[in-house]
Amino acid sequence: MKTYLDCLPCYLNQALRAAKMAGANPEVSYKIMSDTAAFIPQLNMKASPAENGTKVYQIVFDETGESDPYHAIKRQHIDDALAILPELEAIVEDSDDPLLTAIRIAVAGNIIDLGIPDKINLVEDVRKILKQDFALFDYKQFCERLDKASSVLYLGDNSGESVFDTILIKALKKPVVYAVREHPIINDVTYDEAVLSGLDKVAEIVSSGTSAPGTILHLCSNEFIDRFNKADMIISKGQGNYEGLSGETNPVFFLLKAKCKPIANDLGVHPGDIVLKSLV
Amino acid sequence: MKTYLDCLPCYLNQALRAAKMAGANPEVSYKIMSDTAAFIPQLNMKASPAENGTKVYQIVFDETGESDPYHAIKRQHIDDALAILPELEAIVEDSDDPLLTAIRIAVAGNIIDLGIPDKINLVEDVRKILKQDFALFDYKQFCERLDKASSVLYLGDNSGESVFDTILIKALKKPVVYAVREHPIINDVTYDEAVLSGLDKVAEIVSSGTSAPGTILHLCSNEFIDRFNKADMIISKGQGNYEGLSGETNPVFFLLKAKCKPIANDLGVHPGDIVLKSLV
Repeated sequence: MKTYLDCLPCYLNQALRAAKMAGANPEVSYKIMSDTAAFIPQLNMKASPAENGTKVYQIVFDETGESDPYHAIKRQHIDDALAILPELEAIVEDSDDPLLTAIRIAVAGNIIDLGIPDKINLVEDVRKILKQDFALFDYKQFCERLDKASSVLYLGDNSGESVFDTILIKALKKPVVYAVREHPIINDVTYDEAVLSGLDKVAEIVSSGTSAPGTILHLCSNEFIDRFNKADMIISKGQGNYEGLSGETNPVFFLLKAKCKPIANDLGVHPGDIVLKSLV
Repeated sequence: MKTYLDCLPCYLNQALRAAKMAGANPEVSYKIMSDTAAFIPQLNMKASPAENGTKVYQIVFDETGESDPYHAIKRQHIDDALAILPELEAIVEDSDDPLLTAIRIAVAGNIIDLGIPDKINLVEDVRKILKQDFALFDYKQFCERLDKASSVLYLGDNSGESVFDTILIKALKKPVVYAVREHPIINDVTYDEAVLSGLDKVAEIVSSGTSAPGTILHLCSNEFIDRFNKADMIISKGQGNYEGLSGETNPVFFLLKAKCKPIANDLGVHPGDIVLKSLV
């Protein structure tokens, strides 16, 4: 997916948010905003938003020395999600189609605001999301591909959402390799957060080799690219991974909520829609 | 009011919206976004957001040759407002405090989305807004100042909202001079829109001499500055005028909805709040 004009204001919003998270003072925050603005005319509009966005977080690191501004919030989101995990597992067990319910819960992890402190409301929110219709729903192809696959490569997205991923991974009933970012970027799941989320108990955790906030293949390690190209089936969570992989030809299933206009336009859906889309 | 860091992404959003309104093709839109981003590191953070924002619309004009991208939408908003004017006037006549009700209707003009095509819903929306509490409410000072004033200088804001201003102007029961922008900028009211709104029937219309989207005194004509400094009472509508005048010491009453975080912070209220605030 290319970078849209609507993505450009978003870079400044992201820079401001990351500067605040990194505890930057007003002068440093101004420098971060200024450098991000100056970068915009130079970015490659044919590259994905996630690839261009990497530079924003590099600027924040250069100016603050903080390599993981979202560290505390990632831990909080994981704790919030773990607190409701038993209830979510019960929902799957009680359902007529546990695989589909697990898919819905995995996409719910991409939707809900895990910052909500009230455990009961969080479960209620998930229950509401479980009733939302998919705008794109390649479930039949998903089941067929899963049936034939000897293993699944699962591309993680955010921390906290990663706890929800354990539920879908169990429901797949296949060996799963769970890919995380090599270095911290925004609130994306890295090895440490994956372990805290319990993913080491249900999957083999590997790094994609990149610190981009998405799976941008040419920025990934050769080892990961080889694994990606040989995978029987790939489940790709969230926008950042979609942005990097929408132009590939591998057996990828995108599972995400379209949170912004550029992504929604690119998918042919509306902002707020949820999607299970087969790439091939 | 100074420019806040939160204003910076807004410049890119405004540039994109104005580029679309001006019918710019993708290449020209990219140039507009790129030039706006390149301007951000050079802007004067001590100047008001409206003053810095003027440059964005200059860029749109330079790249498209379109000096009034919001021309059609301004006319539509005026027509929508005129269609419900008799109902609004009836609300004022039926009220216990017609002046206060007229003030509420004037601020409602700053709140409602005049793009709503349904006349009945528009009246309903205004009725809801009439019940909203003011976060800052210097009504006593307003009445005292009005009582002593021989005339009132009224600073217009948006087209469409300008129709609502006629109601407050009638309720003031004093001679009123209504100030408009010299040249089109965003959807702000100029002389032509003021006349279409019926302001020539209730006030003397003058230009502030500026094409900034607010009353930035050092950009106004000497004639206007003189008028401003001699005014017994000034009613200032909307954010743009507040941004330019918040640091002055004249008898200004700001009447607005705080639509964004920087303005709300500056006023010490919350986004979404409505305000009647005396400057002195």
